[in-house]
Amino acid sequence: MNFKEDFRLKSIELNEKRVIRDAIHDYIHVDHLIIWRLINSKEMQRLRRIKQLGGTYQVFQSAEHSRFVHSLGVYQVVRRMLETECLTNALSDYDKLCVMCAGLLHDIGHGPFSHSFEGVFEENHEDMTVRMILEESEVHDILVSLYTQLPQDVASIIQHTHPNRILIQMVSSQLDADRMDYLLRDSYMSGTTYGHFDMSRILRTMRIRDGKIVYKESGVQAIENYILARYHMYWQVYYHPTARSYEHLLQSIFQRVKDLYYDGYVFQTHLHYLIPMLEHRFQVSDFVDLDEAVILYYFKEFTREKDFILSDLSSRFLNRHLFKYQQLKSQKDLMAIKAIAQAKGYHPDYYIVSDNQKQIPYLHYGESGELSEIEILDSEGCLSPLPMKSEIVSAILNSKRFKSDQKVFFPKEIKDELSIF
Amino acid sequence: MNFKEDFRLKSIELNEKRVIRDAIHDYIHVDHLIIWRLINSKEMQRLRRIKQLGGTYQVFQSAEHSRFVHSLGVYQVVRRMLETECLTNALSDYDKLCVMCAGLLHDIGHGPFSHSFEGVFEENHEDMTVRMILEESEVHDILVSLYTQLPQDVASIIQHTHPNRILIQMVSSQLDADRMDYLLRDSYMSGTTYGHFDMSRILRTMRIRDGKIVYKESGVQAIENYILARYHMYWQVYYHPTARSYEHLLQSIFQRVKDLYYDGYVFQTHLHYLIPMLEHRFQVSDFVDLDEAVILYYFKEFTREKDFILSDLSSRFLNRHLFKYQQLKSQKDLMAIKAIAQAKGYHPDYYIVSDNQKQIPYLHYGESGELSEIEILDSEGCLSPLPMKSEIVSAILNSKRFKSDQKVFFPKEIKDELSIF
Amino acid sequence: MNFKEDFRLKSIELNEKRVIRDAIHDYIHVDHLIIWRLINSKEMQRLRRIKQLGGTYQVFQSAEHSRFVHSLGVYQVVRRMLETECLTNALSDYDKLCVMCAGLLHDIGHGPFSHSFEGVFEENHEDMTVRMILEESEVHDILVSLYTQLPQDVASIIQHTHPNRILIQMVSSQLDADRMDYLLRDSYMSGTTYGHFDMSRILRTMRIRDGKIVYKESGVQAIENYILARYHMYWQVYYHPTARSYEHLLQSIFQRVKDLYYDGYVFQTHLHYLIPMLEHRFQVSDFVDLDEAVILYYFKEFTREKDFILSDLSSRFLNRHLFKYQQLKSQKDLMAIKAIAQAKGYHPDYYIVSDNQKQIPYLHYGESGELSEIEILDSEGCLSPLPMKSEIVSAILNSKRFKSDQKVFFPKEIKDELSIF
Amino acid sequence: MNFKEDFRLKSIELNEKRVIRDAIHDYIHVDHLIIWRLINSKEMQRLRRIKQLGGTYQVFQSAEHSRFVHSLGVYQVVRRMLETECLTNALSDYDKLCVMCAGLLHDIGHGPFSHSFEGVFEENHEDMTVRMILEESEVHDILVSLYTQLPQDVASIIQHTHPNRILIQMVSSQLDADRMDYLLRDSYMSGTTYGHFDMSRILRTMRIRDGKIVYKESGVQAIENYILARYHMYWQVYYHPTARSYEHLLQSIFQRVKDLYYDGYVFQTHLHYLIPMLEHRFQVSDFVDLDEAVILYYFKEFTREKDFILSDLSSRFLNRHLFKYQQLKSQKDLMAIKAIAQAKGYHPDYYIVSDNQKQIPYLHYGESGELSEIEILDSEGCLSPLPMKSEIVSAILNSKRFKSDQKVFFPKEIKDELSIF
Repeated sequence: MNFKEDFRLKSIELNEKRVIRDAIHDYIHVDHLIIWRLINSKEMQRLRRIKQLGGTYQVFQSAEHSRFVHSLGVYQVVRRMLETECLTNALSDYDKLCVMCAGLLHDIGHGPFSHSFEGVFEENHEDMTVRMILEESEVHDILVSLYTQLPQDVASIIQHTHPNRILIQMVSSQLDADRMDYLLRDSYMSGTTYGHFDMSRILRTMRIRDGKIVYKESGVQAIENYILARYHMYWQVYYHPTARSYEHLLQSIFQRVKDLYYDGYVFQTHLHYLIPMLEHRFQVSDFVDLDEAVILYYFKEFTREKDFILSDLSSRFLNRHLFKYQQLKSQKDLMAIKAIAQAKGYHPDYYIVSDNQKQIPYLHYGESGELSEIEILDSEGCLSPLPMKSEIVSAILNSKRFKSDQKVFFPKEIKDELSIF
Repeated sequence: MNFKEDFRLKSIELNEKRVIRDAIHDYIHVDHLIIWRLINSKEMQRLRRIKQLGGTYQVFQSAEHSRFVHSLGVYQVVRRMLETECLTNALSDYDKLCVMCAGLLHDIGHGPFSHSFEGVFEENHEDMTVRMILEESEVHDILVSLYTQLPQDVASIIQHTHPNRILIQMVSSQLDADRMDYLLRDSYMSGTTYGHFDMSRILRTMRIRDGKIVYKESGVQAIENYILARYHMYWQVYYHPTARSYEHLLQSIFQRVKDLYYDGYVFQTHLHYLIPMLEHRFQVSDFVDLDEAVILYYFKEFTREKDFILSDLSSRFLNRHLFKYQQLKSQKDLMAIKAIAQAKGYHPDYYIVSDNQKQIPYLHYGESGELSEIEILDSEGCLSPLPMKSEIVSAILNSKRFKSDQKVFFPKEIKDELSIF
Repeated sequence: MNFKEDFRLKSIELNEKRVIRDAIHDYIHVDHLIIWRLINSKEMQRLRRIKQLGGTYQVFQSAEHSRFVHSLGVYQVVRRMLETECLTNALSDYDKLCVMCAGLLHDIGHGPFSHSFEGVFEENHEDMTVRMILEESEVHDILVSLYTQLPQDVASIIQHTHPNRILIQMVSSQLDADRMDYLLRDSYMSGTTYGHFDMSRILRTMRIRDGKIVYKESGVQAIENYILARYHMYWQVYYHPTARSYEHLLQSIFQRVKDLYYDGYVFQTHLHYLIPMLEHRFQVSDFVDLDEAVILYYFKEFTREKDFILSDLSSRFLNRHLFKYQQLKSQKDLMAIKAIAQAKGYHPDYYIVSDNQKQIPYLHYGESGELSEIEILDSEGCLSPLPMKSEIVSAILNSKRFKSDQKVFFPKEIKDELSIF
Repeated sequence: MNFKEDFRLKSIELNEKRVIRDAIHDYIHVDHLIIWRLINSKEMQRLRRIKQLGGTYQVFQSAEHSRFVHSLGVYQVVRRMLETECLTNALSDYDKLCVMCAGLLHDIGHGPFSHSFEGVFEENHEDMTVRMILEESEVHDILVSLYTQLPQDVASIIQHTHPNRILIQMVSSQLDADRMDYLLRDSYMSGTTYGHFDMSRILRTMRIRDGKIVYKESGVQAIENYILARYHMYWQVYYHPTARSYEHLLQSIFQRVKDLYYDGYVFQTHLHYLIPMLEHRFQVSDFVDLDEAVILYYFKEFTREKDFILSDLSSRFLNRHLFKYQQLKSQKDLMAIKAIAQAKGYHPDYYIVSDNQKQIPYLHYGESGELSEIEILDSEGCLSPLPMKSEIVSAILNSKRFKSDQKVFFPKEIKDELSIF
């Protein structure tokens, strides 16, 4: 007997199907007990305490939603994809189950304030997600209780190693359930209009060819719209300098903690939830204990630490005294700015930060693999890469210039001194 | 005493200001008696009987709105522009009045089913609007009753001859009240998501420099969004082949009426509302008598005419037996198709039509004048044309390829014969 | 062999299913050829030329939609109802087909400007719909071509005589597809917020008990919301005095035409589309020829008639010089007002109209039959009428007072004289 | 010289006015430096770490917004009220400033998870708000820096003791900026349709009579709509049993902490942020230190406490093992249920909770004072209480029955034992 082939979703259906009200998808439907159990697992519930947008809600104040609701949304988009005629027929029930689980769980490995956290603690959220699925966790136990190989099959979708490329494309590719949910959700929650696009039409034009998801030519303009929605959301929302300022401040705090710890500084704060990360020897359960409540608690405690840099940065963070910023013209200027900061008593390693945001609208992930290409199916059955069929996308790709934005961030107190740059 | 300088809007304010509920702008505010009287004029009320979207509502069924509500909308956008700090200060009360009137009245010269009608009867709606304002009409009388020069000043905005370029830009330029309203309205009414853009932000970034409206650099992405909204609305909605099919059928009917009339055919239908147009000797009042109700009535009558072509085309129109269409590859093919139609008994002058839709997203109007350029004001006070500041717009302009779409339209009955092309 | 029992919807499915973009339901899905053919029939296409809201768009300017798009919407709501688990199981494929057709066709018997028209010409739109389905028409031919009894079965749903009460409830009851679509659509198009309610939730709580549609108790508040949406739409939108003024003016015109015709007046206007109605001897095809374009054409012609009352009323109508109105306190006042009008030269039969709008929110249709009651299924499986389960609905029913509004309508010219009442 | 009389808002206007993007109000406008400084104060920033909806987001998952964005929204509604003609004229610039501050600050005294927290620690958020404004705080310093009496004047609006009743009505009455923002926001964020109402229309019908805000009769239906929106939001959202279950669990945890503390239990957790509350001797600054991050951190720590009840309840809370619930029929049943719980090892003081939700839609606050009444101004200038002018509100008030809902909450583990009740 072959579990994967014989498996029928019908067999694990809930007697009374559940629905969750959602501002983006109206209702999120839960038809299977295993999905309900995963939603209620410790690892998923933890995502309620991690904000989706990191620092962005410092600018777009109403965008306070968590990674938890986004994860529900990704699951729901996967579920809608599975309802399309082409995917209904192309996938086995077992594959459908795997991809629903992968959509739901794809973000469980995110740390609190994830980007800054990852940067300093050298943790990678995709690896962490995979560990949480494969190692000891409630999520793992729930998956295993249905079928021993299920954790591995779900994880391989997230790792891009699953043999069925369709499943990988659904969860992470240029046009996947993850991005579709976050563009719609972040746009709705922030009250901007940039992220709207016509998801229904995109789903309606999905087809399967050569074991991959492709799109009918009649969907090209909806896809162009999606790509531009993404481009504008990045520049208007995600890369907003105030949001970056907030991320840099976070990163400086984490960095200071790390440096102090390695220098043997004695913390008044009981750091026990952070120590496994600092020591680089942590179990899944240590990681699950970390959420934004813990980190915010620590920041409050840090305001009482005797190390001035740590207490000052933490207090700036909690009371929203973010770094100011201005355009940075050269590395020479950066050196000069650091010198001024030093002279004014601000340690440049923590108080002067620069970044250079650059985004290529179409190839955001920077993947080189074949799945990164959106392929278009024309009326004669031929496949072409999207830029061949879209003047807009092609024009963008062939442009010599790409939008980039180099900025330096610094304490408000030295703003006047830096006005000469 | 100088009327224009001394004029105060306050002096003609309504005691009880009026509001009109509107699906797009929530409320349209009418503060001045003259605006209320213009809205209730015969020429404006006639626009209730002319659809905004010509044939488009044959595809986007719920987009049945009239030029009347669009005109109210344009007036409201002008009014919102006047509320911005920069325009409040830059314009005299008299200029403000002129531009509100121009926004409201800019479309009164449209005929029924305007594009097809204009094509056949060689009437131009902008000229007609100007005539209606300057010659004998209720609208003219209302304007004159306030000030003798008012009709001329309003008309000169529509004619692009007014000395104050700001007023012209507000009503017709690359980024004007007309386009802003129609993109939002057509998108809302058709239920598509393509036409959304962030009007509030665009208005907030308006500034006056060198006697022109320019936009702060922080508005560039909202403007990019607007330009792409326009691009997508054109291709998804306005240039939809079924909408074009409907326009071509209309045009064939008008053409047949004209040809029969000049050939001395004796119509059973009492054509008296059309005769002034056919004779090219019409008064403003003759034109005002024409609306879509009259034309639809004639079409119903035409189904009883003994001329087979006229009765057949009219019946196809009323019962939505539109022409079918396919890609057209060459002029040689077109000749061959016409020959087949002829052989099958369909007069090719009326039953075979081809068109080639081509749109350049940025320079849609095809103006070459300076006002056609959207100018961007950077933080150092310099002005640059939009493409210098927008990678997206620049990429599109530098692209060699533009989207174009050449199609041939024909009666359903000969579809099979044409499948070889 | 039994057609009804053996019939499978699958057998008439379109190879390529069609979708129609819609502002309310996003997409309207057409899966079966017969539905597509009905949509494209002459009788359905005629509804494009009849506005849904009669005079209401004189107040809510952007609500210009037609009965055609509403009919598509009703069909779509029926289709969604059929997708609920309870109805999927409860109905045969043949019944499903019948009710989809009935939803789509339920309004084809409406005349132009229906309420005023019906009032004067003593035509009833439900009877007319039934005649159009049963007698000679394109719609009839399309239905018969599938199965000879189909017209009768569809008509009996509209006539409330079909043996399966569920089908009747779906199309016309206190909570039916017709009302659900029109509340949502009229609200969206008019830009008011009053008509919103949670249709998804109502559909999700539908159950079948004793051969009827009932609703789970968890749906009570969504239903309360729907009933109050209806109540508010009636008072804010449908019964708006300006809309009533417009209807009264229409009715006076129709009445004047009728009176003149019976008096032997010789019309300059060629009345041939109206004569069958005036003579009370019309075929279905005569009725199908009548639409708002014809009537508006006649009104324009009437402005040239020598009968002053007819030409004056028609001109008021076309140029929106609607009747003014005020509260009417007694029948005695009405007599006095009529006398004043007469003295001023306004024939009171046509120029003075009064009405008394009264609406009972719950029992709007005024049906006494059992289907008029919304029944609620509690967790113990018992059924109760809605007012037993809804404090709001119960409170309203037990209230002694109901909102009513008695008004008199008159020409603007005698407004001052009537200010004493 | 008299500060209050001479004060002009113009004098404190920002050179560059600021706007904050918001999902509900599109933009929140900040025109004055003092408002900007208040927004960036420690006490306001703390509200970012306190959720608006307590436990409700356990059911309506996407409603994760904070009291901070709600406070910005209330300020914006106050600002819009001040723009209405009647309030522009009725209030001095100083009063306008006071009421904007009061709207912004009205919620700063809320504790983390406020209702449960208040219940156990006997703190009242309105008193606390007043203390924070009057005693030592950043907010206090900012207010005083403009004018010494400003804190007192702002506080007196919140305390309902300000001599100008209009200001009190704007911030807290049956129809105030607070409720308007929260209904719109909670509805948008939760994705329900219940909370929509027509705020623009309500504001447009505001008038001042006898030193109070009243509403024109033409606004009655918009107000009915608002009252019913409130009624439905309470029952569908705020009083949802799962949300109550979450609140009860919270309350049990707080109660257990309190009981253990007074019993001399030695906590492993460093409780220092809670001790001032437990001791009932806290400064404003102690209170400001408390937010949901701290409490969630403590809960995580509590899961490691040796007191089983505390660690068990905390773990249930963090991992969303909420109490189950069922209808409670009598106090006798409650006693029996407690006995069963006790027998099963669940301490009934913490594990068995019952509540009885009861809501009177119109008089929700339960105020008896004159300001609790919404007054309607008819066309003859007379004032009547809303129920005299609204059949719906009157019907509800005269109804004998009010919706109430008595439930008992208990651990899932004893669900089967309780099925007999």
